[in-house]
Amino acid sequence: MREYLPIGVFDSGIGGLSVVKYIINNLPNENLIYFGDIARIPYGTKSIDTIQKFARQTVKFLIKQDIKAIVIACNTISAVALDAVKQLAGNIPVIDVISAGAKASSVGYKKVGVIGTNATINSHAYPNSIHKLNPEVEVISQACPLIVPLIEEGLIKHRALELICKDYLKALLDKNIEALVLGCTHYPLISDIIQSIIGNSIDIIDPAIDTCNNLQQILIKNKILNSSNQMISHKFFVTDMPQKFQKIGEMFLHTPMQHIELVTFEH
Amino acid sequence: MREYLPIGVFDSGIGGLSVVKYIINNLPNENLIYFGDIARIPYGTKSIDTIQKFARQTVKFLIKQDIKAIVIACNTISAVALDAVKQLAGNIPVIDVISAGAKASSVGYKKVGVIGTNATINSHAYPNSIHKLNPEVEVISQACPLIVPLIEEGLIKHRALELICKDYLKALLDKNIEALVLGCTHYPLISDIIQSIIGNSIDIIDPAIDTCNNLQQILIKNKILNSSNQMISHKFFVTDMPQKFQKIGEMFLHTPMQHIELVTFEH
Repeated sequence: MREYLPIGVFDSGIGGLSVVKYIINNLPNENLIYFGDIARIPYGTKSIDTIQKFARQTVKFLIKQDIKAIVIACNTISAVALDAVKQLAGNIPVIDVISAGAKASSVGYKKVGVIGTNATINSHAYPNSIHKLNPEVEVISQACPLIVPLIEEGLIKHRALELICKDYLKALLDKNIEALVLGCTHYPLISDIIQSIIGNSIDIIDPAIDTCNNLQQILIKNKILNSSNQMISHKFFVTDMPQKFQKIGEMFLHTPMQHIELVTFEH
Repeated sequence: MREYLPIGVFDSGIGGLSVVKYIINNLPNENLIYFGDIARIPYGTKSIDTIQKFARQTVKFLIKQDIKAIVIACNTISAVALDAVKQLAGNIPVIDVISAGAKASSVGYKKVGVIGTNATINSHAYPNSIHKLNPEVEVISQACPLIVPLIEEGLIKHRALELICKDYLKALLDKNIEALVLGCTHYPLISDIIQSIIGNSIDIIDPAIDTCNNLQQILIKNKILNSSNQMISHKFFVTDMPQKFQKIGEMFLHTPMQHIELVTFEH
């Protein structure tokens, strides 16, 4: 019975939990396996070759756990390693945050801003994906490499975060964007600060929402949506520091994380 | 002729070049091999087990290059993996930044502050090393995990860096320290900002200076100081992004880097 199998969700580290939160809330009958490569974070400052190599190792691990679908809950990996992941996944459907974010921003806007890590922005994955759906949308991109470390150090309310965000967002505001895509799964944690800088007339697009919708549609289409609410489990695997992962992770999920396991790739 | 062999210098990434600069200036006849594990930076936020594993891989690589001495140009690795490195090194002498920084701060001060990464500070390596030399010195430690990413993003003159540094240093200033050890090889790049915050009455101690002195003494003692200035080479090996390494690296060294090579550990 494939419908009972877990969905594999992965990220370079902890940000992907903002996608997990939506999945748990909207698809409460699904079993989940989350993988965060904490030992090698951050991915967003690394080269394409290195990110693809790391992503392949993770996908091989997930496939061994017997999963029914893969969610790439990381914009950086979606941006530079989507094809590599799909190739390894074979018949297992792959859902990614960038396709979802592009879908949400391709309708109803003429000018859209995108913020993300260096790797995501340099890949041009967002403009490419948006233009495939709607070539009329003007996409203005801005790398914001320091937001992730500032969030991971808990400086969510610090004046320094606001100053750095203001610097990053200035170029986008000068271009009169109508919507802003949060092109990194960490950013929803500071959406209030971002909204206060850009003002209420600019929409914020969180790709996690459409990622979850896309996942649901694919599960239905493949007849593998779990209809039973028995014995649901959410398991989390990390390559380093399970305690720290749990502490920050519960801030993301607003719920206790029962099963956290340490795994290693290298010997 | 062992004296002609290179010295192996390694760091998690690029900060160790602040030590290389001193070695090049003070020991211009020495051949150098530098290794930076760019693909897995930063180390300072990771667990002891993971840092030790990464350090062992690097040391095995350096030993294969036939080196005459090893310099750990990274406080985090010195703090948690010095014994692991010495064990692998066997008869090859190992010089580390923390022993050097401890030596410099153990004489002439009653109260010393130390700043470093999470891993360095949590290890208590500085207070332990200082107290072995002089149990009378009071050591006050402060982790500053965001300084490295801010420097690596080039925000050396940004108001946000100053605000974050002020927050980190406040607790040390409240304790009336007489000297401050820069317990991370990135920090010398912003020593002017740190000095302006702490004032001129507090001495700044850069362990790179004593690391270089210790290296020179050990080379002399072991009769392996290179007396010839022929064919001197400085080779740099990184696990990711050689171009970015070169760009930031030349800021550290103030000189062109000729030989940069990409190596990988994982397959």
